[in-house]
Amino acid sequence: MSGVRERLVVIGGDAAGLSAAAQARRLRPAADLEIVVLEQGPEVSYSACGIPYWIGDLVSDRDRLLARTPAAFESDDIQVRIRTRAEEIDLQAGWVRTSGGERLGYDTLVVATGGKPFRPPIPGLDADGVHGVHRLADGAEIRAGIAAGARHAVVLGGGYIGLEMAEVLQARGLSVTVVLADPLPMAALDADMGERVCKAMGDMGIEVQPDQPVREIEADADGVVRAVRTDAGSYEADLVVMGLGMGAETTLARAAGLQIGVTGGIDVAHTQRSRSHPEVFAAGDCAQTFHRLTGEAVHIALGTHANKQGRVAGSVIGGRLARFPGVLGTAATKVGDLEVARTGLCTTQAEQAGFDHRSELIEATTRAGYFPGAAPIAVKLITERGSGLLIGAQVVGGPGSAKRIDVLATAIWAGMTAEELAGSDLSYAPPFSPTYDPVGVAARVASRIEQG
Amino acid sequence: MSGVRERLVVIGGDAAGLSAAAQARRLRPAADLEIVVLEQGPEVSYSACGIPYWIGDLVSDRDRLLARTPAAFESDDIQVRIRTRAEEIDLQAGWVRTSGGERLGYDTLVVATGGKPFRPPIPGLDADGVHGVHRLADGAEIRAGIAAGARHAVVLGGGYIGLEMAEVLQARGLSVTVVLADPLPMAALDADMGERVCKAMGDMGIEVQPDQPVREIEADADGVVRAVRTDAGSYEADLVVMGLGMGAETTLARAAGLQIGVTGGIDVAHTQRSRSHPEVFAAGDCAQTFHRLTGEAVHIALGTHANKQGRVAGSVIGGRLARFPGVLGTAATKVGDLEVARTGLCTTQAEQAGFDHRSELIEATTRAGYFPGAAPIAVKLITERGSGLLIGAQVVGGPGSAKRIDVLATAIWAGMTAEELAGSDLSYAPPFSPTYDPVGVAARVASRIEQG
Repeated sequence: MSGVRERLVVIGGDAAGLSAAAQARRLRPAADLEIVVLEQGPEVSYSACGIPYWIGDLVSDRDRLLARTPAAFESDDIQVRIRTRAEEIDLQAGWVRTSGGERLGYDTLVVATGGKPFRPPIPGLDADGVHGVHRLADGAEIRAGIAAGARHAVVLGGGYIGLEMAEVLQARGLSVTVVLADPLPMAALDADMGERVCKAMGDMGIEVQPDQPVREIEADADGVVRAVRTDAGSYEADLVVMGLGMGAETTLARAAGLQIGVTGGIDVAHTQRSRSHPEVFAAGDCAQTFHRLTGEAVHIALGTHANKQGRVAGSVIGGRLARFPGVLGTAATKVGDLEVARTGLCTTQAEQAGFDHRSELIEATTRAGYFPGAAPIAVKLITERGSGLLIGAQVVGGPGSAKRIDVLATAIWAGMTAEELAGSDLSYAPPFSPTYDPVGVAARVASRIEQG
Repeated sequence: MSGVRERLVVIGGDAAGLSAAAQARRLRPAADLEIVVLEQGPEVSYSACGIPYWIGDLVSDRDRLLARTPAAFESDDIQVRIRTRAEEIDLQAGWVRTSGGERLGYDTLVVATGGKPFRPPIPGLDADGVHGVHRLADGAEIRAGIAAGARHAVVLGGGYIGLEMAEVLQARGLSVTVVLADPLPMAALDADMGERVCKAMGDMGIEVQPDQPVREIEADADGVVRAVRTDAGSYEADLVVMGLGMGAETTLARAAGLQIGVTGGIDVAHTQRSRSHPEVFAAGDCAQTFHRLTGEAVHIALGTHANKQGRVAGSVIGGRLARFPGVLGTAATKVGDLEVARTGLCTTQAEQAGFDHRSELIEATTRAGYFPGAAPIAVKLITERGSGLLIGAQVVGGPGSAKRIDVLATAIWAGMTAEELAGSDLSYAPPFSPTYDPVGVAARVASRIEQG
């Protein structure tokens, strides 16, 4: 290293960290900036979101979940050290101590330590057969459990991961019970939409047990899970999957003294720069972000945001003006043939944010009613009363439903009213939509009601 | 009729006319406004866009293409007279002469006479076996031709109808040749996107003959079609389908003296009110409209616009402020598994409109690359140079591609830049998209290039 060459250290070799590294490299040559990425696991750049589908045998080969190898980064002059934990950060001195014992000095640090699955404070969680769905190793263990003859799965939680795991475990031949602390699956939806998801799960043969916080995981004498117990019952299980949501993994950041936000994520500016230590950036599931509509701090673990936030950090490190523009909480998933998506504020969130709001729910078909494969679709819009501004949307329906949320997310992002969206020029052809797309129908109904 | 009760006469019982009638009725009770709809054909409210799929046996029953019956309108106090032609309009006296010989007086008139397929000025067009795809009767005749053993189809034109007809005729077992006056199918796309469509058609076994205006339809001694002749060759045919585009059907309007616009459609204000006769409205395929981005007059025959324009006319007749907000030329279709969609300005249109523009074409996959069914997708964006404003978009790809155009249409509608769209919160889940949706990738690349 020459005297003027700076060093960027990135902790975490997944979406956020690698995006930051790649973008910084695009903007600053290796002679100017050395880049070292520390990754505690054996792989970098894997798709955690793909793990359920690998478990479900829809993805045959684990390696297909790996987007890039360390070697691919090396060719871009980005050093990637796998199986290397960051054990300690010294913010004053400016170094990271690695599991190899090295004190690695940095000029700029990106913390991208990711998320950690929420674990309920109950006994028995360490029994054999109880798994998260976060690391590739989790996927391998669940696959091994199925291969070893697991027959009864209990899924804890009815969010995105819970739904996906219920679907793939059933497809692998297990009986599946989903145990919810909430009254309905998909708590990010309004109840009238969540009920549709719940009914579809029941119709698929997935048993849903609502309103039952888990009290204990029961194990046999060998420490192997045998049941999940709630106040209402005990559900036989030789495989338990936790899909209770993700928090920010900030153990290292907290110990170092980085400022943590109200959501538990690292507190960053729109540049992804730490609010307490300007030479440090944080991005991805370990960082706090903000809601586009309310400005409020939120924590949403999602690879898309991680990618974008990493890119913003890399751009700023590279000397560019850049900012992360916030999130709407857009999300999509499916359970069987039922697709589910949401964006913006649901009714509860709109109330909490102080919006005088109303909502409209319409039912239509995904294709022209006469076209083969036309399936029911329900679209719900939340608008601000008096202005008609779109502030939230939810979609539940057959194949072709989920991606319609992107139209609504874009409309909300752009600050459109329901009337403006109703007038917009959405595509029509019988294989793809009725004459008036369900999104347009919902916007028209919401607009008409706003106008009295 | 009491002295104060007014009469609305609507000429044409399809999307535009019936939307106008229904909306006027919502706003004005029967005691205040009598509504009479004249329809020359035997049915009202049918889906012309569905005819190819009925021919292809994807829609089993012709009646499924009928959205509503006259009786359904009668129950809303809307009189619908089928098999009743409007023979003449007297704009001074305010009446319509019907094929029954009646002079039907009106206070307000809606002209919704629809479109007419373009017929090239060549000999032989009246041969047996040469068909349009406009009326339900066309569909019945083509079906009868197939049932009678037609084996070789020639489709004239490679637009939406041409592609759909090529697909369904091939699916019915006919050999299909598509003869184009243009160098590529889908002239509404840029050449680099049209080439993808052309290649896919070839891969499906559809023969495409480009750059060959048709010179003659050749018939045998009985007047039955036997070939289509161009300067380059003669193509055997026992079935010929015209898919050469639609113009405005204005025979009646022209004879009456209604002002016709530069596109050949009836010239109307944003209220759908005739610019020459304020007591007359026109809507749907017979009317001229305007492009949202350029303000220029355009004529686009599409059921979606017809519905909306009819609704605007009905609202204004009902005493409300309403305006049609223009079109972006959004359209979608498919040929086999290849989906094709476009919105806004293509490169040629951007040049003609005087935009200093650039374009970016990206290739991605419709789903996460590792997810079953992931298919290639190409997204092309046209942006204004210097501002990054989105002005056009085209999508060609596998299943799940076409409806992504709606995100781009909404972004263009809202006046978003590529950078704004790249930052927006589009959904992600492996069954529906890569981590970064192809639309977002295209926007990011376009934005990055704009920023240098």
